[in-house]
Order: sequence, then C-alpha cells, then structure tokens
Amino acid sequence: MTDYNTIRYEIDDGLLRLTLNRPDQMNSFTVEMAGELEDAYNRASSDDAVRVIVVTGEGKAFCAGMDLSGEGNAFGLDESLTPTMEDMGSWPLRPEIESGVRDTGGQIALAMYDCLKPIVGAINGAAVGIGATMTLPMDIRLASTKARLGFVFGRIGITPEACSTWFLPRIVGLEKALELFYRADILSAEEALEVGLVRSVLQPEDLVEEACTLARSLVKDRSPVGIALMRQMTLQNSAQPHPRAAHEVESLGVFYTSQEDGKEGVAAFLEKRAANFTGKASKMPPFYPWQKG
Amino acid sequence: MTDYNTIRYEIDDGLLRLTLNRPDQMNSFTVEMAGELEDAYNRASSDDAVRVIVVTGEGKAFCAGMDLSGEGNAFGLDESLTPTMEDMGSWPLRPEIESGVRDTGGQIALAMYDCLKPIVGAINGAAVGIGATMTLPMDIRLASTKARLGFVFGRIGITPEACSTWFLPRIVGLEKALELFYRADILSAEEALEVGLVRSVLQPEDLVEEACTLARSLVKDRSPVGIALMRQMTLQNSAQPHPRAAHEVESLGVFYTSQEDGKEGVAAFLEKRAANFTGKASKMPPFYPWQKG
Amino acid sequence: MTDYNTIRYEIDDGLLRLTLNRPDQMNSFTVEMAGELEDAYNRASSDDAVRVIVVTGEGKAFCAGMDLSGEGNAFGLDESLTPTMEDMGSWPLRPEIESGVRDTGGQIALAMYDCLKPIVGAINGAAVGIGATMTLPMDIRLASTKARLGFVFGRIGITPEACSTWFLPRIVGLEKALELFYRADILSAEEALEVGLVRSVLQPEDLVEEACTLARSLVKDRSPVGIALMRQMTLQNSAQPHPRAAHEVESLGVFYTSQEDGKEGVAAFLEKRAANFTGKASKMPPFYPWQKG
Repeated sequence: MTDYNTIRYEIDDGLLRLTLNRPDQMNSFTVEMAGELEDAYNRASSDDAVRVIVVTGEGKAFCAGMDLSGEGNAFGLDESLTPTMEDMGSWPLRPEIESGVRDTGGQIALAMYDCLKPIVGAINGAAVGIGATMTLPMDIRLASTKARLGFVFGRIGITPEACSTWFLPRIVGLEKALELFYRADILSAEEALEVGLVRSVLQPEDLVEEACTLARSLVKDRSPVGIALMRQMTLQNSAQPHPRAAHEVESLGVFYTSQEDGKEGVAAFLEKRAANFTGKASKMPPFYPWQKG
Repeated sequence: MTDYNTIRYEIDDGLLRLTLNRPDQMNSFTVEMAGELEDAYNRASSDDAVRVIVVTGEGKAFCAGMDLSGEGNAFGLDESLTPTMEDMGSWPLRPEIESGVRDTGGQIALAMYDCLKPIVGAINGAAVGIGATMTLPMDIRLASTKARLGFVFGRIGITPEACSTWFLPRIVGLEKALELFYRADILSAEEALEVGLVRSVLQPEDLVEEACTLARSLVKDRSPVGIALMRQMTLQNSAQPHPRAAHEVESLGVFYTSQEDGKEGVAAFLEKRAANFTGKASKMPPFYPWQKG
Repeated sequence: MTDYNTIRYEIDDGLLRLTLNRPDQMNSFTVEMAGELEDAYNRASSDDAVRVIVVTGEGKAFCAGMDLSGEGNAFGLDESLTPTMEDMGSWPLRPEIESGVRDTGGQIALAMYDCLKPIVGAINGAAVGIGATMTLPMDIRLASTKARLGFVFGRIGITPEACSTWFLPRIVGLEKALELFYRADILSAEEALEVGLVRSVLQPEDLVEEACTLARSLVKDRSPVGIALMRQMTLQNSAQPHPRAAHEVESLGVFYTSQEDGKEGVAAFLEKRAANFTGKASKMPPFYPWQKG
C-alpha cells in the first residue's frame, strides 16, 4: 500500500486517494507529515499510474493544524538563526535555512503547484491553520456539512503560510482574503461556501465518493500530457504581467501536442470515434518545465 | 467595403462591425482568417474613423473552431522544427518560428490586447476552440440564446491557445478556468452566463443591435485618446506586481491628457455644457506605448 | 487634536478616525489635502496608538473630487515639462517631476498600500473622481444609502489616477473595471454594492458607528505585528508571478513572529486563556520592508 507513517497513499484505477492518517490526533500536522505529503505529491506527479488525486482526512478531522504539543519552538524552527530575504532568495537554500527556517507548509504548497495531476479536496471535518492553507493549491475543494475552515494564524500571533498569501486572494479576492486573515475565524461549511472557499457542501456520507466521481470526470478520455500542460499553463501563465508570456508557452504547447496525442485526437474527431491517447505525463514535451527553478 | 476574403470590415458612424464570413464552413478558422483578423484589429486600432468594435459571425455559427479538413499538420505547423522557450522569447521571432511554430490565435489575441478601441462580442452561435478563445480579449461578450462556447482543446489532445491561459482566469477565476479547460465541454449560453463568460444572454434577433447599442454607449461623448489610454492602462497596469507601475503611467496619463482634451473637458464641466473633444487615437501622447515590444 | 487644515486626525482607544474636513466645498480635493492625507497615513502607519483606521467625510459629501476652481492647470501640473516613462521610473524622482508631474492621488494610494494598519472606508456621500479612487486601497468600503461613486475621469477627457488602474480590476474584475472607466457614470450606493465596490449599504445615521465597530473587530485580540505583516504579505505576495515569492516572505514571517507574539499566542492557546500580545508595529521584524523602494 504505502510506506508512509502519517498518510495513506492508495491508487485505484488511476485515482490516488491521499489520506491524512493521524485520526487520534485529529490529523494534526507534524514535520514528518510535511515531508511525507511533499514526497507523495512529487511521486504522484511523476507516476503514470496516477491520473488525478483526491485528498481527505481519516476520522473526524481533515487536519486540525500544527501539532503544538512538542518541546522547543512549536514550529520546529532554529531560533539561533537570523535569516534575511537574501537567504530565502538564494536557491538552493543553505542547509540550515532549509531545515531551520523554511516553512514546511510552503514546501507542500509548491509541490502541489508543480504537480502534473489535478487535485480535488474532500474536506471532511476541521481544517484549521495549515489544515486550511494546504487545501488552497487544490484545483477544487468540496466540503462535508461537518467541515470547518479557519485561517487562525492571527489568533496565536503568527502569520499565514503555505503560500496562502498568494493562493487565497486568487480564490476569494483581495478584500475577503485580508478579512479572513485578520478575523482568523473558524468558518462553517456554509460560510466557506458563501465566501467562495469551497465549490459545494455535501452530506458526510457522500463526500469522498462525490469527490472521486468529480475527480475522475476531469481526466476521463483526456491526454495525460494535455491535462498536465493545461494545469501548469493556467497556474503559471495567468500570473504573468503580460499575455505574451502565455503566447510563448502556448505556441510550444500546441506545437508539440499536435504532433503526439493531438494527431490521434484530430483523427478520432474526424472519424467520429473515441480517441485513444497514449501520451504519458512522465514524458512531457521538451519545453517543460519552462520556468527554471 | 473590405478587401478581406474571410471577414467583413464595415464602419458605420464610428462603429466597426467585424464579421467572420465563412458561413458555409461555420466560419471555421483558417490561417488566412488569422492574418485578416490580426490585420483588421491593427487597422481598427489606428483608424480614427473607428471608435468601437463589434464582432460577430455570419450565419448560424460564430466560429466553429480550427478548420481541420486540410492536409498535413492540422494547425499549419512545421513539424521539422524543434523549437525551444529561448526561440519563443527572442523577439522578433526568426522567420521559421514565426511561420512554422507561432500560434496564430495568440497573434490575434495580442492584437486585440494592444487595440486602442473597446471590443464587444456578439456571439451568435457556436464558438468552439479558437472560436471561444478569440472572444476572451474582448472588453464585453454578449451571447444569443443559440450561442455555445467550448474550450474543447482537451478533447483532441492539444492545449489551449490564443493567450487564453492568461485571459480566462482573469475573467472567471483560476478554479473555473482550470475546470473549463479540463472538461472541454460545450456550454450553453445560460451555462456561459452562469460561469461568468458572457455578460448577458439575448434573443438571436436582438443580439447584434443590442451589442451595437452597448458598444456606442461606451464611447459616446468620450475623448478617443482617453478611452484608448484607459483600455491600455487597465489591461496592462492591473497585471503588474506593484501599484507603483500604475502610478508611473497614470501620472503621465493625467499630465498629458489634462493639457489636451482635459482642458476642454474641465472647461465644459465648469460651463455646464457638453464637451467637444478633438483628440485622436492616432495621435497618442508621447509616452505611449510605454511597454516596449 | 490635529495640526491639519483639510482633514481631522482623531484617535480614540486605538481607532484613528480620519475625516475629510472641507464640508463647505464638499470636501473637494486640493494639493494641500493630498499632502495632509499622505502624511496622515504615514503617521498612522508608524504610530502604535493607532491599531485601525476609519475614513469618512464631514458633512454631506465624502469627497466631490478635484477642486477645479483654481487658475492655471487644474491639476497643479507644470505644463512646461515633457516627462517620459524614464523620468517616472527613476526613483527618487527629480524635484520638478515630483512637484510638477507626479499624481498626488497616487502618492496617497501608495501610502495607503504601505500602511501597517487596516483601513475601513465609511462613504457618507458623493465620492467622485479622486473621491472614488482614494477608497480603492482601503481594506473594506462601507456606504451609506446617500453614497454616490463615480470614476468620472472620462467625462472630462482625462485618465484614471490614484493607482486605480491597479486596484479597481483587483476589486471588481477586469471587465467591470474597464466598463466603469469607459462609462464614467455616477453609481448609487445600491449599484456600487451590486458591482462589488462596497461591502454593504447602511443607513446614514448608522454608517460611521458600524464602520468603527467593524474596524475594531478586525484587530481586537490580535498582534499588531501580525496584522501589519498579514496586510503587507497579502497585498504584495498576491500580485507576484510565482507563489515562491510568497513562500520566501512567509517563511520569515512565521520564523520571526513565532519567537515573539507567537510564543505568547501558543502558550495562551495551550493554557486556554486570552493572549496578551506585546509586539508593536513600530518594531517590525528585521526582514520588513522586504520590497526595496
């Protein structure tokens, strides 16, 4: 099944179900879980057996936030350091910055951003702090009526993380993002729906099945290479200052796909039959990745 | 009237009606149409006889997408090349990249982006593939009840184009854009309205007249220079990483317009009379264009 | 109370009420008011006695726009100059550009953007031209039923200012922003609500009290440093082309706050008591400001 301690990684016919699996601790977040989630998203991105991903939590909670029960710095940070913006901008990061400063939630968010497969969230219960922010890089979020979402960083005197100051305004707009961060309230599923954080609210017993049905519908009869490029092109190009950046990437996207799965797709269209795509996301066209690390 | 083969270019009292005119082929898109549309937008941008543009399709369809009935590479691409991001980023493009790689839809989209006149779409029927993406750089899209919109690239194994990965998320948001691209469904007019792709849905017999009325209302009693600057400032500045970029351009915008049509505008306001603006979009202030090619 | 001529600056228990105070001139905007508003926002940003800001107008109007009753260039510009984009991009600006070209509304908007305290608008009446655009960098706008908002620049032949071509599309979307600028109409409070310009419409007698209640609720029981960082991180990071920019800043945000108010916050959370934050926005962590002027 899986070689992870804090999550389950289960593939069924192209769908990866990723389950946060510390139910007795409300799936609270640890440094170990951070590393396992980042690894799981990277693995899913390159594994052709995975076409789409559904993420949920075992038991009552989705993820109740950072596990604050440990000793020392609650966030695992090395308080002897005095890091600067220059330190954070020097990639690859120096080892002590990587291990003692770098936000673990952000590492997961960037792995999700880079992922070549669509990600659907099935938020089954409390999703608080990192439990809330780790859902933002997903393509679609579904919530059960028992879901609760809270960007609670302000309550404990810290700041948002997991790239949420980039993702949240793109999902709910700048003003609502600011207010959600200031207020740090725990939202009900209905409130999360109203503010635009989740796509729909479902009965708890239907949540995961609906999420899987939706997830499969996104990739059915599609080219894995086409889906991967669409995800990366949309996420990356839409944030560029000028549409010409999109034009340059899109030109290569059509150029290369039209010679692979596109040939079969056009033939199938003209012959009025189903297409049989053979491309693999593990073999992306040569211009990918177009943004250098 | 016009010297185009695939489109009509008709000016009536400041309004350019641009009509895709291959009704027997559902106005399907060809390399010739691409060149003519790009030329038409560029011409309209610099022609003072054009104040505003309405785009529609002749016959039943708006544009049924790329004409896939030809021989060889369905998209007119030179399959002997192996283009890179470096090739695409080297402007001006080398001739073989320009003719054998560059996305023609994107060339039109960039001409629309650069256009100094507002553009209103009157989507009268099927708008599929490039037929859908070519509407995204318009200022406003109206649809008839018979309109159908589909970003169908995923169905034939290729990727979106015409700068749509830049424009679509700006219109409907990042999540809906991703889902529209993944699903590649054909939306009814009502569905397009619901997702935010079109501003309103009209009876087929009212569509073009309503679009013309709306288009004229955008520029009536306005300075052509002011309208042109507003369009360019809003499109360009809103995508910049810091508001200071807007501040720099806006300072020059007010500086120069306040000495031309702005003088007449303030005088007319103080004298409580209609303004008589004499500026021309063919004579933009000296700081335009502020973004270098 | 205050040493300003055109505005009032009144602090009550952490809340700064900033009042445009030229009621006999409909609070119309002058060069003097521009300087005083910029100074007031900068002062509030660094004054620990201010936790949150409410802005309103004295008398019937909020701000009826630029005072056009003066002699010479109505906008106070030096018409002997021929400024270029290069001039505007050379910071610090040369003195004659600063005084004779630079948009005063934009100076205020940038001071509001840089402000470390949330800003709530209480739009009590006409907010026209700069009176409308000066509300856009606020976190939240409330309107009385008597409010009227108009981006009327097009009516007098000039272009929008006060960084509104950056802010307005972020608030109402690209298409609505373009149409608001083209039309240059005066919107009723209900129309402003419908287009997403204001958060809610209140009875005139309730407006300022509701705005103050809302403003206080944003910062109550919060760390001033945390609120300041959240505001700056959300405004700045969300406009960056890649989420890694957010990741770098957020890593430092959590790193430094977790060692100051975050320690108290976590302790209070674990001890199930109210937190007693002692941080001050006048003493921001060493990585702030992370964007160089």
